[in-house]
Amino acid sequence: MATSNAVQIREVGLRDGLQMVQTILTSAQKLEWCRRMVDAGVTDIEVTSFVPPKVVPQFADAAEVAQGALAIEGLHAAALVPNLKGAQRAFDVGLRKVHYVLSASNEHNLKNVRRSTAESVEDFVRIVAARDESEQPGVRGVALGAGIATAFGCTIAGRVDEGIVLDLVETLLQAGADEITIADTVGYANPGQVRALMREVCALAGDVPVACHFHDTRGLGLANVVAALDAGVRSFDASLGGLGGCPFAPNATGNINTEDTVFLLEAEGLHTGVDIGKLLVMREQLALWLPGEPFTGAIARAGLPKTFAQQAQAIAA
Amino acid sequence: MATSNAVQIREVGLRDGLQMVQTILTSAQKLEWCRRMVDAGVTDIEVTSFVPPKVVPQFADAAEVAQGALAIEGLHAAALVPNLKGAQRAFDVGLRKVHYVLSASNEHNLKNVRRSTAESVEDFVRIVAARDESEQPGVRGVALGAGIATAFGCTIAGRVDEGIVLDLVETLLQAGADEITIADTVGYANPGQVRALMREVCALAGDVPVACHFHDTRGLGLANVVAALDAGVRSFDASLGGLGGCPFAPNATGNINTEDTVFLLEAEGLHTGVDIGKLLVMREQLALWLPGEPFTGAIARAGLPKTFAQQAQAIAA
Repeated sequence: MATSNAVQIREVGLRDGLQMVQTILTSAQKLEWCRRMVDAGVTDIEVTSFVPPKVVPQFADAAEVAQGALAIEGLHAAALVPNLKGAQRAFDVGLRKVHYVLSASNEHNLKNVRRSTAESVEDFVRIVAARDESEQPGVRGVALGAGIATAFGCTIAGRVDEGIVLDLVETLLQAGADEITIADTVGYANPGQVRALMREVCALAGDVPVACHFHDTRGLGLANVVAALDAGVRSFDASLGGLGGCPFAPNATGNINTEDTVFLLEAEGLHTGVDIGKLLVMREQLALWLPGEPFTGAIARAGLPKTFAQQAQAIAA
Repeated sequence: MATSNAVQIREVGLRDGLQMVQTILTSAQKLEWCRRMVDAGVTDIEVTSFVPPKVVPQFADAAEVAQGALAIEGLHAAALVPNLKGAQRAFDVGLRKVHYVLSASNEHNLKNVRRSTAESVEDFVRIVAARDESEQPGVRGVALGAGIATAFGCTIAGRVDEGIVLDLVETLLQAGADEITIADTVGYANPGQVRALMREVCALAGDVPVACHFHDTRGLGLANVVAALDAGVRSFDASLGGLGGCPFAPNATGNINTEDTVFLLEAEGLHTGVDIGKLLVMREQLALWLPGEPFTGAIARAGLPKTFAQQAQAIAA
C-alpha cells in the first residue's frame, strides 16, 4: 500500500458537507454533482447518509440519490449508515459499499447516535450478520467499511486514548470490517499524533484498506495528510470547497478541501487521477447552489503554481 | 540543532506583513506591537525594513522604529535590508542583527531590487566588508543573516532549480553569512520539496543557523513547516494574523500565521515559549489598527483544542 504511487480521494461533500448547510439540494443537483466529480476523476463518493430524515432533512432523499448514483457509469457510490436500520435501507437500494461509523469517544457517540460506543460496536456485528445472512440478491457482496470518529480527541471528552482507538480497530476488524476509516471529526489531530496512530492502525489492518478523514478546523488538515502518507495511508476523505462539520462538535467547520488535497498529493508526486480544473468549475456551480455557505480553499483563491504542470511532466517523464 | 526541543518563532508581521497593507501604522503602534509580542514570548522580531521610503512608505520610520525597538527589554530586534545603503542605515541605528535578502530567481530579483541575483550577491559581499571594516562602535559585532527568496519557485520564472539555491547557500556562507533563511516567497513549496531541499541546506550550513520563511498562499504553509522540522530546521518566520505578501508576486497573500504556527509546534511537542492567548489579544488590537485588511488563522476562529493544555502537561511531566 505505502509503496504505490496511487492515492484514493473519496468525496464526502454530499454527506459530511451537506449535513449542516441551510439549503437543501435537490436530488437532481446531488446527482449532477456526482456526475461532474466522476468526470473530474473522483470515482469514490459517499453520496448520502441513511439517517432518519427527521434528524437531517437534507438526507430525506437518500434512497433516491443512492439509486440515481448507482446508474452513473464509473461511480463507486457509498453511503453512511449510523445503525442497522440505515444499513438495511442501503442494502435495499442495492449499494455495493456501506460506511458505518461510531465514535471512539463514548460521550460523542451518545450525543451523535444516542447510545454507547459499545452498543454501536454490537450494532456493527448485527450489520455484518445481516449482510452475511441476507437472501436479497447481491447483498452478501456488499463491502462494509467501519469508521472511528473522534479518534484524535473530542470536543466533549477531550483526550481520546490511542489504546481505545486501537482496541476498536481490532474489534471492528474481527467483526468483519472490509475497510477502516480513522476520523478526526473535530479537527484536534496534529501530525505527530497522526503519524504515530496511523502506523499502528496500518500494522493492525494488514491487507484491509485504511483511510483517513480529516477536518481542517485548526489549520492542520493538510499537514495531517502528509503525516498519514508517511504512515502508509493511501486513501483520504475530502469535501469539495471544504464544506462540512458536525452538529455536535462546535466550530468543527470544514472537512479538508478536495481541490487543495488533490493539489497537495499531486505536488508530492502521488497520483490521484483527478483534474483540479474540473473540480474548480464544479465548486463554482456548488457555490451558486448553496448561497451564503462558507467555502474554503487556497487553490480556488490563489490558483495552481506555475510549476505544477512542470512537476507533473517531470514525474511522468 | 535537530535534537533540541526548542523552536524559534520570528515575527515578520511588522516587516513582511505591513509592506502591502493600506493603513500606515504609527511608530508608537509598531513599538506597542513589539512590546506585546515580547510579553507573549516572541523575542525575535524583524521590526522594519530599510528600503527607500518612496518604494514602501510604511517603512519611512524605519530608523525611529529600530531605535525604539532597541530600547525594549528582552527584544532581539532585526531589520531587513535590500542593499548596502540599507545595511549602513541599520548599522547607524545600532541594530545587532541585519537580514539581507536576494532572490534565487533572477527574474524576481530584477523586479524586486532592479538588479540581477549575481549583483545582489556582490552587494552582500560589500555589506560583510562594510561591517568587518567599520570603525563605528559595535558594528563589527552585528550578525548578518542572508535570505534566499523564491527558493521553491517563482511566479515569474516558474521552476527554480535546487542547484541554484544550494550554490547560493554556499556562496553566501563563504561570503560570511551568520545565518541562512530559505524563503518560499510566493507559496509554491510542497512538503516533499521542502524536506529534500532543507536537508541539503542544513548539511551545507553545518553550525550556521538555518531558518525557513513560508507563505500559506496555497494552503501548504504548515505542512511545509512539518517537513522542514523533519529536515532539522528549528527556526521559522511567521506573521501575526497571517498578514503579508509580496508586491511583485500576485496572490502571494499571507505569511504563515504566527498563532497557528505556534499551535502546530507546541502540539507536536516542541517548545516555542510563546503564549497563544496573548498573541490572540494582540491580534485583535492589530485588526482594530488595520481596518479592512484580511487576517487568516484557524486558532483565532476555532480556538485551541480541549486537549492542548493536556498535551503540554503530558510533555512537561
